[in-house]
Amino acid sequence: MKNIVTIGGGTGSYTVLSGLKNIPDISISALVSMSDDGGSTGVLRDELGVLPPGDVRQCLVALSDHSDVMRKLMNYRFSEGTLKGHSFGNIFLAALEKVTGDFVEGVEVASEIMKVYGKVIPITKNKAELEITLLNGKILEGENAIQNANLQDVGIKDVFYKNNVELNENAEEAILKADYIILGPGNYYCSLVPNLIVEGFSKAVCKSKAKIILPINLTNKLGHTTDWKVSNYVNSVEKYIGRLVDFVLVNNQEPSREQIERYKLEEGAGVLVADDFMDNRVTRTALLSHVMPIVIKGDISPNTRGFIRHNSKKLADCIEKIINS
Amino acid sequence: MKNIVTIGGGTGSYTVLSGLKNIPDISISALVSMSDDGGSTGVLRDELGVLPPGDVRQCLVALSDHSDVMRKLMNYRFSEGTLKGHSFGNIFLAALEKVTGDFVEGVEVASEIMKVYGKVIPITKNKAELEITLLNGKILEGENAIQNANLQDVGIKDVFYKNNVELNENAEEAILKADYIILGPGNYYCSLVPNLIVEGFSKAVCKSKAKIILPINLTNKLGHTTDWKVSNYVNSVEKYIGRLVDFVLVNNQEPSREQIERYKLEEGAGVLVADDFMDNRVTRTALLSHVMPIVIKGDISPNTRGFIRHNSKKLADCIEKIINS
Repeated sequence: MKNIVTIGGGTGSYTVLSGLKNIPDISISALVSMSDDGGSTGVLRDELGVLPPGDVRQCLVALSDHSDVMRKLMNYRFSEGTLKGHSFGNIFLAALEKVTGDFVEGVEVASEIMKVYGKVIPITKNKAELEITLLNGKILEGENAIQNANLQDVGIKDVFYKNNVELNENAEEAILKADYIILGPGNYYCSLVPNLIVEGFSKAVCKSKAKIILPINLTNKLGHTTDWKVSNYVNSVEKYIGRLVDFVLVNNQEPSREQIERYKLEEGAGVLVADDFMDNRVTRTALLSHVMPIVIKGDISPNTRGFIRHNSKKLADCIEKIINS
Repeated sequence: MKNIVTIGGGTGSYTVLSGLKNIPDISISALVSMSDDGGSTGVLRDELGVLPPGDVRQCLVALSDHSDVMRKLMNYRFSEGTLKGHSFGNIFLAALEKVTGDFVEGVEVASEIMKVYGKVIPITKNKAELEITLLNGKILEGENAIQNANLQDVGIKDVFYKNNVELNENAEEAILKADYIILGPGNYYCSLVPNLIVEGFSKAVCKSKAKIILPINLTNKLGHTTDWKVSNYVNSVEKYIGRLVDFVLVNNQEPSREQIERYKLEEGAGVLVADDFMDNRVTRTALLSHVMPIVIKGDISPNTRGFIRHNSKKLADCIEKIINS
């Protein structure tokens, strides 16, 4: 039994976990960023003082062995009345935090109810208020503000938490017991980095004997990672964690013209150019999903939101080969 | 295996079901009124167009074999923000109706998730808008208005639904297969009668070979059943259902002075005088709960709301004797 730890946030973690759960003889721990403060999650966070449920919900859904209706229920978003905009799963996790008195315990109960395969572990129990200082001194407060800002025009000075945000001890234990740690994929500054800068995270990763797998994003986010190449991701991650990564997964499949057009239209970002990083740590293979999203009313499944995405199965197959090599 | 059907709404059904579920070799179907339009239930009904979840939730909780935390979760009521006043379980049932597209199917899925022993069946799938016409011609619209009105000052002319409200076919099937039907206890005009007047209900009950058990309420509701005696309840119910009841369960235990005082203070109603009905269908026994309620913050368990209540176990023991006699 190999212990696999994933590190991330929303959609990226959903994709990698959906594939991983079908690999035999592995134990999965999904470590999840706690810095989300937008949308339904942000409202619940503000109004109820709970930890942000959105990303945890997506990981639980990815690993749920329950019926299809359970997944639909957890992703169901109310479209009318005072509940408008709230995802049911977010309300579920907020209520469980209130009932158990502890978000981490609430997530455990949710896992039981949703028949989750593996563990979903918040990276921290602290209120995580992300901030970025730009080179001109401007401070961006909160993930939602960062999400929508152009960070590259001026340049980033520092990414940090306003308060003390420490590694949850369950997360530390998972990292120390891990055989493989998968960093991402996902929104770089809003899903991946918020984990890497948690107090105690890099120390645990450096202490761990785990091999580190870094699936490189397929696209660059406008104003965040515009024009980044594989080397930028690898170098940046290694600086945050303080050690080298062991495997770099790079997609070598061209998106269709339709995918590129729709992606540009929605997110204005470019496809990553992946020809720069020649290193024996790199695996180049087809990792792209060619499923065009079908948006079903009320269903905000991450599958249906993006247009250029990793294919869960291809990504998992690639990871499985590394694990069993 | 005896088939037992309960008919009712909120607190009364919760009490009878909590006891019944421990009787061996019976199959329980809880038929639940759909006319509630107050509180969190009323808001969800208005805003989302769903069927009223509150009473169903209480029955599901009573019959749930899941962990204690599941019961606490389902009864958890938000106390802040836009979710303020909503019971989590109500939101859960509303979301399931939206996801499955059908309240009855949603309740079935909820039963599975909550590991419910037995079945909880909405009495109707129709939108049930209860009305009462008084003898002076005044019409009271909706259960919430009726709940707070004095019906006896003027007198009731008719209790009916504004629209066509038909018996749910699953409810009909349960009635026809029943060996025993338990009517109440509960709020007479707001929990019991709304079931009895559903189109097709009395026909099904008359067609059924089931014996009918009527546990008489312990207290009279001010302005609804003030000064009623056992005979009033029996005669009124028999008029609605069009046949005689077979067993009448009457409590013969005195509430404590403290219970009476607290009850008066909260509900302003009198304890039922139970010495009038001399009939061989009557069982007189101790059915009273002596547990004084402890109100825990956020926990609106029906156990903690009333002060003069049936004891679940005593009531179930009494019913078990009848079933096995």
